[in-house]
Amino acid sequence: MPRTQVAIVGAGPAGLLLAHLLRLRGIDSVVLERQSREHVERRIRAGVLEQGSVDLLASVGLADRLLAQRLVHTGVELLFDGTGHRIPLTELAGRELTIYGQHELVKDLVAARLATGEPLLFDAPVVAVEDHTGSPVVRYVHEGREVELRCDFVAGCDGYHGVSRASVPAGALTAIDHAYPYAWLGVLANVAPSSAELVYAAHERGFALHSMRSPTVTRLYLQVAPDEDLASWPDSRVWTELGTRLARGSGFALRTGEIVDKAVTALRGFVVEPMRHGRLFLAGDAAHIVPATGAKGLNLAVVDVAVLASALSRYYADGDESGLDSYSATCLSRVWRAQHFSWWMTSMLHRPPDEDPFARRLRLSQLRYLTSSHAAATSFAENYVGLPFPEGVP
Amino acid sequence: MPRTQVAIVGAGPAGLLLAHLLRLRGIDSVVLERQSREHVERRIRAGVLEQGSVDLLASVGLADRLLAQRLVHTGVELLFDGTGHRIPLTELAGRELTIYGQHELVKDLVAARLATGEPLLFDAPVVAVEDHTGSPVVRYVHEGREVELRCDFVAGCDGYHGVSRASVPAGALTAIDHAYPYAWLGVLANVAPSSAELVYAAHERGFALHSMRSPTVTRLYLQVAPDEDLASWPDSRVWTELGTRLARGSGFALRTGEIVDKAVTALRGFVVEPMRHGRLFLAGDAAHIVPATGAKGLNLAVVDVAVLASALSRYYADGDESGLDSYSATCLSRVWRAQHFSWWMTSMLHRPPDEDPFARRLRLSQLRYLTSSHAAATSFAENYVGLPFPEGVP
Repeated sequence: MPRTQVAIVGAGPAGLLLAHLLRLRGIDSVVLERQSREHVERRIRAGVLEQGSVDLLASVGLADRLLAQRLVHTGVELLFDGTGHRIPLTELAGRELTIYGQHELVKDLVAARLATGEPLLFDAPVVAVEDHTGSPVVRYVHEGREVELRCDFVAGCDGYHGVSRASVPAGALTAIDHAYPYAWLGVLANVAPSSAELVYAAHERGFALHSMRSPTVTRLYLQVAPDEDLASWPDSRVWTELGTRLARGSGFALRTGEIVDKAVTALRGFVVEPMRHGRLFLAGDAAHIVPATGAKGLNLAVVDVAVLASALSRYYADGDESGLDSYSATCLSRVWRAQHFSWWMTSMLHRPPDEDPFARRLRLSQLRYLTSSHAAATSFAENYVGLPFPEGVP
Repeated sequence: MPRTQVAIVGAGPAGLLLAHLLRLRGIDSVVLERQSREHVERRIRAGVLEQGSVDLLASVGLADRLLAQRLVHTGVELLFDGTGHRIPLTELAGRELTIYGQHELVKDLVAARLATGEPLLFDAPVVAVEDHTGSPVVRYVHEGREVELRCDFVAGCDGYHGVSRASVPAGALTAIDHAYPYAWLGVLANVAPSSAELVYAAHERGFALHSMRSPTVTRLYLQVAPDEDLASWPDSRVWTELGTRLARGSGFALRTGEIVDKAVTALRGFVVEPMRHGRLFLAGDAAHIVPATGAKGLNLAVVDVAVLASALSRYYADGDESGLDSYSATCLSRVWRAQHFSWWMTSMLHRPPDEDPFARRLRLSQLRYLTSSHAAATSFAENYVGLPFPEGVP
C-alpha cells in the first residue's frame, strides 16, 4: 500500500500551496484532485490578494509571474447617493492590494509542483477518508482503479463540497451557517476596466461591484435574489443594470464588452468548529466560506495552510504537537474576524429585500460616517488589506 | 391674548436650555411645563454629558455647579469573557466625559431661568398646539383656567409622549421606529461606585452596566426582557445578578447598598422626519429616542436646541430663514449617526433572546477586535465622546 507523510485532498490554492510549503521543510505529500488540470486552471474564483498573502508567496518563490503581471491597488471606492468616495487603503493601513486571478495563481502553483516531480494527481477523486484518529487512510480512484494511501496526516483542502469534511463522523464537528438574503450575479467580460480601482456601489436598486482581473478583463457583480434565474439576465440587461447602479456624477463611464462567463453565486457564511478531527486538518473553503464582498476567502486559505505547514514542520522536527493542537483555535480567531468584517461590509452595501426605513437610514449613516471619519476609514482599511498574520507564521 | 416670540413646550433640558440661549440673543419665550417643579427636578434620567455639551453650557454661564460637582471620565471599560478592557477615550479622541445627573442639570437650568424673571410655568399642561403653518397658538391650562398663547414659533421640547408632535396633522410627519428585543432594569443605589469609570459588560447571561451619578450614588442596569415584571426582581436578586454579570478576574468587587429607585425601561429607536412642521420645531426626545447604551439622548437634545437657537437668532436679526429651513436636515444627520452608533453598541453588548451561534461569534469577534485595534477603538471613542457639533453651532 502506498504511503506518504501528508495526504492533501484538493489541488486548489490551499492544497497546492500547502504541498509547496511542506516540501520546503522536507515533508512528503501527495496531492489528489478530482478534477482535470484544465478544469482547475480555468475555474473563475477570487482575484484580490492581501499583501501578506503575496509576501508569503514571494518568500517561497511562487510569485514571479504574479509580481510581473499583477495590478497593484492602493484604494477602493465606495459609491452611494450617486457620489464616489475613495478609501486610500495604503495611506491608511500601510499595505497594498494585488489584483491577480485565482486561476492564474493556480496555474503557477501547479507548474511549481509539477517541476518538483512530487506527486500531484488530477482526475483522482478521493472517495473516502478513514481512521482519522488512528492511522489515516485516503482512498481515491485514479486511472480506473481504487488506491489506498496511508499517511500520518490528511489535509482537507477540497472545498465546501469536498469529501474531507464529509468523512468526519456525525457530531464530531459543529457547522455554523448563515444564509444571506441575496446572491451575486457575476460576469467576466473581455473589456478594459472602467475604473482603475474596485468600485463598491450601494445603490437603492441593490449592490453592484466593478472589479477586474487584468488590464483587459473586467469582473462585475450585481446583487440579485438567492433564487435568481440566470435565463432572465441576457447580456443587455446585465449591462443596463450595471450602468444604472454604477452611475455617478462624473469620472466614470461603464465600458461594455463580450461577456465570457456568467453565473449566480449565493452569499453565505459558514464555519466548521474545530477545523480538525484527529489527524485530519481542514483548510480553506473546506472549513469556512465567507461572502465574497470582503475578498477574504482566498486569503484565509493562505493563512490556514501557512499555520498548518508550520505546525507540521515542528511536529516532524522534534515531535512537538503544540502547533497541531493550536491550529484550529489560531485559524478560527482570524476566520471569525473575517466573517465579521465580511458580514459588516456585506450588510452595509446590500439592500435586503425586506429592509425597513430604520435599517436603511442606519446603513446610509454608516456609509457617510465611514467615508468621513479617519478612524472609521482606517478600521475598514486595515481589515480590507488584511490584518497581520498570526504570531510565528509563516 | 398673551403673546411671545417662541412658545417652548416642556421644561426638560431641551426646553430650558433653549429658553436660555434665546434670551441671550434677545428673543422672548414662554416655557410651559405640565409637571411640578419638584417633579422635573427629581426625575432620574441620563447622566453622561459630552464635552461639547459641557462646553456649550459653560459658554453661556450654566455650568458653574456642574463644573464644581461633576466627575470627569477619560475612559470606559468593556468587560467580556471575564476580562475588562479599558478604552482610553480621551487619549484616543481628545475629549473627556462629564458625569452629572440630568436632574441636577435641570435644577441649574430652572434656577437660571427663574433668576431672569422670564416666564417658566410649572403645572401648566399644554392641551393643544394649533395653526402650525400660520400664526401658531398654544393652549394651556394654568391655575384652573385655559390660556391661549400666540407666538411666532413653537418649540416642541415635551418628550416622546408630548403634545407637540401629536398636534401635527396625520401624514405630515413620518415616524421611524425600531423596537429592541430587550429592556433595561435600572437601579439607583446609595453606595459608592465600585469602579472609577463606567463598565459595560457583555455577559452570556445578558448585558450589565455599572455607572454612577456621584461619589456616593451608583447607577446600575441589567438587560431584561421587554415585558419583565419588576415584582420578580427583589433587591437581593438584582445585586446577585449584577455581581454575576460584572464579575471578572480581579480589580473589581461590586459594592451593594440601599436601592432608592428601580424601574424597567424599554430600549427603542425612534425618529420623526422632518423635525419641523410649519412653525413648530421639534427638539430632543419629542423628535427622537435612542437606546441609553451610547449615552446620546441628552447630548442630542443639547445640539438640537443649539441649532434651533442659532436659526431663530438669524431669523430675528435679519429675516434670514435659511437656518430654520435647514434645521431638520442638520439635526437629522447627527441624530441618525447617534442612532447608528447606539444600535451598534447595543447590538454588540446585548445578548438577544434568539441569538444564533453565527451571530454570537460575530459579536464576540467584534468585541475582541474593538479592544485590540487602535483604529477601531478610536472610531468607538470619537462617537462615544461625541462627534463635532454641526458647522456654525453654537
